[in-house]
Amino acid sequence: MGNFKILCKDSSSAARAGLLTTTHGKVETPAFMPVGTAGAVKGITPEQLKETGASIILANTYHLLLRPGIETIEKLGGLGRFMGWNKPILTDSGGYQVFSLSPLIKIDDEGIEFASHVDGAKVYLNAEIATDIQNRLGVDIIMCLDQCTAFGAGDSEVKKAVERTIRWAKRAKNAHTNPDQLLFGIVQGGIDPQMRTHCALELVKTGFDGYAIGGLSVGEGHENMIKTVKHTVQYLPQDKPHYLMGVGTPADIIAAVMAGIDMFDCVLPTRNGRNAFAFTQNGPVRLRNNAHINNSVPIEAGCDCYCCRNFSRGTLRHFFNCGEMLGPILVTIHNLTFYQRFMAKIRQKLKEGQFSNWAKEFTIDN
Amino acid sequence: MGNFKILCKDSSSAARAGLLTTTHGKVETPAFMPVGTAGAVKGITPEQLKETGASIILANTYHLLLRPGIETIEKLGGLGRFMGWNKPILTDSGGYQVFSLSPLIKIDDEGIEFASHVDGAKVYLNAEIATDIQNRLGVDIIMCLDQCTAFGAGDSEVKKAVERTIRWAKRAKNAHTNPDQLLFGIVQGGIDPQMRTHCALELVKTGFDGYAIGGLSVGEGHENMIKTVKHTVQYLPQDKPHYLMGVGTPADIIAAVMAGIDMFDCVLPTRNGRNAFAFTQNGPVRLRNNAHINNSVPIEAGCDCYCCRNFSRGTLRHFFNCGEMLGPILVTIHNLTFYQRFMAKIRQKLKEGQFSNWAKEFTIDN
Repeated sequence: MGNFKILCKDSSSAARAGLLTTTHGKVETPAFMPVGTAGAVKGITPEQLKETGASIILANTYHLLLRPGIETIEKLGGLGRFMGWNKPILTDSGGYQVFSLSPLIKIDDEGIEFASHVDGAKVYLNAEIATDIQNRLGVDIIMCLDQCTAFGAGDSEVKKAVERTIRWAKRAKNAHTNPDQLLFGIVQGGIDPQMRTHCALELVKTGFDGYAIGGLSVGEGHENMIKTVKHTVQYLPQDKPHYLMGVGTPADIIAAVMAGIDMFDCVLPTRNGRNAFAFTQNGPVRLRNNAHINNSVPIEAGCDCYCCRNFSRGTLRHFFNCGEMLGPILVTIHNLTFYQRFMAKIRQKLKEGQFSNWAKEFTIDN
Repeated sequence: MGNFKILCKDSSSAARAGLLTTTHGKVETPAFMPVGTAGAVKGITPEQLKETGASIILANTYHLLLRPGIETIEKLGGLGRFMGWNKPILTDSGGYQVFSLSPLIKIDDEGIEFASHVDGAKVYLNAEIATDIQNRLGVDIIMCLDQCTAFGAGDSEVKKAVERTIRWAKRAKNAHTNPDQLLFGIVQGGIDPQMRTHCALELVKTGFDGYAIGGLSVGEGHENMIKTVKHTVQYLPQDKPHYLMGVGTPADIIAAVMAGIDMFDCVLPTRNGRNAFAFTQNGPVRLRNNAHINNSVPIEAGCDCYCCRNFSRGTLRHFFNCGEMLGPILVTIHNLTFYQRFMAKIRQKLKEGQFSNWAKEFTIDN
């Protein structure tokens, strides 16, 4: 009960600011988790990552299971030590990655057999194995194995996935043995309100330290996504953290915070950064553009990140033009700093009681 | 005269420790300059570069002329500001890069016409243009345009290149207009002692702020190289800095310091770092090796670099195995730190009067 404390609530939306306490530190919410898929947030050191303001990151059970394998990470001191990050880590269970990356061999009520996207090797995951792996990784927050469905999946397919997700969540809870870790359930159900309600209520019966909404941001669009989030959050305990998986743009995040979401993860700031796409308060800046050749201004005036303090858009364009690694590195630093500053602004506005007014005027086109 | 001060000399070799004063700061010698070819030391930020102990870096006129072009760098505040590095910079003149990278179109006594290795565009360089470009880049040390010959070039070819190098050096000196910059001449002459003597004496007649030995490390081997360096240094003013271009391994550097060299540049620590090859006091560590899968020790015990303080060989192997950028980044940080620590040790031993004894026992196999 004591892991999550709500510090204040918005008067005209479901938004709230909170504090989540984990074994490796506290996380102010709403929080954005940069994605460190295979044990590294691509392109930057954990030291640079801390400077962006990140207090918690996400890593992927699926990727780490394939490479380097869980035993290796255990032998090297657990995931935090392995990746040089001594703050909180959340691991996804692998359900989404199996859905999105792997040639699936077989899925049934018992578990999932899939082929590694790296070398085709057969790998097996079920609720107990996914939980055991995450227990052994020594991270702070772990996720139940779930079954994700594609956007447009038929009712019976969605229903089957929801029932499995509910059963697997119970099994995950029974299998969970590491008292230093919080275990979150994942609500599935596509964009079907009844399925979402059913899944949420069943997970709540089982009881988790936090609740994630999965299976969104898979092609349903902003409106469907936010509608589904708003609907689902009503059926979740308000005193537990709510995590919207794989989301999203700044506009997505604002709308989801208004719907009562506390935690986010997304590859956008890092992936876009590597592709010369920079986020700013005034919309995106595409740094390969020839218009920047002689441009002496930083990506974003007033930004205090290392990139903006030291490099012009002209230099960044040059780095991308020449294939210098420093281009992706610097724009990743900027984008993650932008995201963390954005989350800090949301928390500040919530604490000042100004969130809804501010959010309404938020027209950033990123 | 006052730019270079010799602090102490070794009693049993030509080695010396010195202090070179430039517009953007002081450089303790013997010094190693990391290579920032196109305005970036590949893979790391200038901030990380400073932490390795680097006090001066090298950039290439040739690359910067092609991309982004000199006018752009001028508009963006000069090379130091452009690349986010506020300490000393030395630029090579472009002679070596034209020799090694470009389909040469035409070379005569007047200058060099070459095809850009990027897009094939015709580019022209002569002594005056190369000097003017470097004047405009606003760096601390600039080099005369020279003509480099391949190892194995015939006597007449070497002689022709030496005569051009001598004439171009005079023209460079006449063209040099930026009083904030030191101008170095480059001794050519392959491994022919007479040619080296002739080139050195003629350059000394013209008079430069420092003298480089170019055209080595092009296939002649360690013995020929060191023999040529020892021979050439005798004909250079002892009160001016001596710079051996493009060298080298730790063993090369030790031998060259004993021969009286004060400055070095080389891509080895950065290029090898990107290829999972780490330098250590006990010889190279190849981090792709499966032997490191579960290896919890850092690259080098006792190394205080960010990589060794935070990452095991097992993690580094994993990063290279997965193609994570963090592998090249971290090993580059380590290798550059190793090189700077190595140079600091050389300077310390010189100051303690222990250099020759220490150098004799130096059996590092890197």
